[in-house]
Amino acid sequence: MSPDRLSTTFSALADPTRRAILARLALGEASVGELAEPFEMSLPAVSKHLKVLERAGLIARGREAQWRPSRLEAGPLKDAADWIEHYRRFWEQSLDRLGDYLRALKAKEEEKKRGRKK
Amino acid sequence: MSPDRLSTTFSALADPTRRAILARLALGEASVGELAEPFEMSLPAVSKHLKVLERAGLIARGREAQWRPSRLEAGPLKDAADWIEHYRRFWEQSLDRLGDYLRALKAKEEEKKRGRKK
Repeated sequence: MSPDRLSTTFSALADPTRRAILARLALGEASVGELAEPFEMSLPAVSKHLKVLERAGLIARGREAQWRPSRLEAGPLKDAADWIEHYRRFWEQSLDRLGDYLRALKAKEEEKKRGRKK
Repeated sequence: MSPDRLSTTFSALADPTRRAILARLALGEASVGELAEPFEMSLPAVSKHLKVLERAGLIARGREAQWRPSRLEAGPLKDAADWIEHYRRFWEQSLDRLGDYLRALKAKEEEKKRGRKK
């Protein structure tokens, strides 16, 4: 079974160098050489990462053999965001609970202070 | 080097069964047996997926040896959503461009119809 689209996207994002490459491409298209420089990586190592990103549809590459600039393609990121979005209420709930806890802690602290002043 | 947190999260999400387990846990906590049933999977296979999710901090498991219910922990999903969010303008731009294209297509089509009626 070939992996589903969303799995391919998440798998491609599960690497800090590939995420850094996407962050660089968010600033504009770049050649393999331009991408290799800041990462101090070999061209073949960068090419390998680009192949993973291209297969996941996260980048598209130009046709010119020498230059072949890569550019960001955000479609799969939208699908990933849509999937994660379903869980938003869960992390917002946890933040609410943390907020409640911190407020209760602060109230207790202030009560203690008032107690000492009396 | 141990993988960074975000890579561990994306890696755990890069599997349709693990995403389905999270979707099930969004409805409430469940034991390994309850999780195995709808997926027609063996308990060890489900346990293996739960271990990956637990290591990624996406679920927490109860202490009771027999029952050990799993529950969703959404913190890492928030971090993943925050990361993807930086790219929102890129997919919104593409949707805008698609919208422009469709509007232009429709205008052309209507112009053609008017031409035929004359």
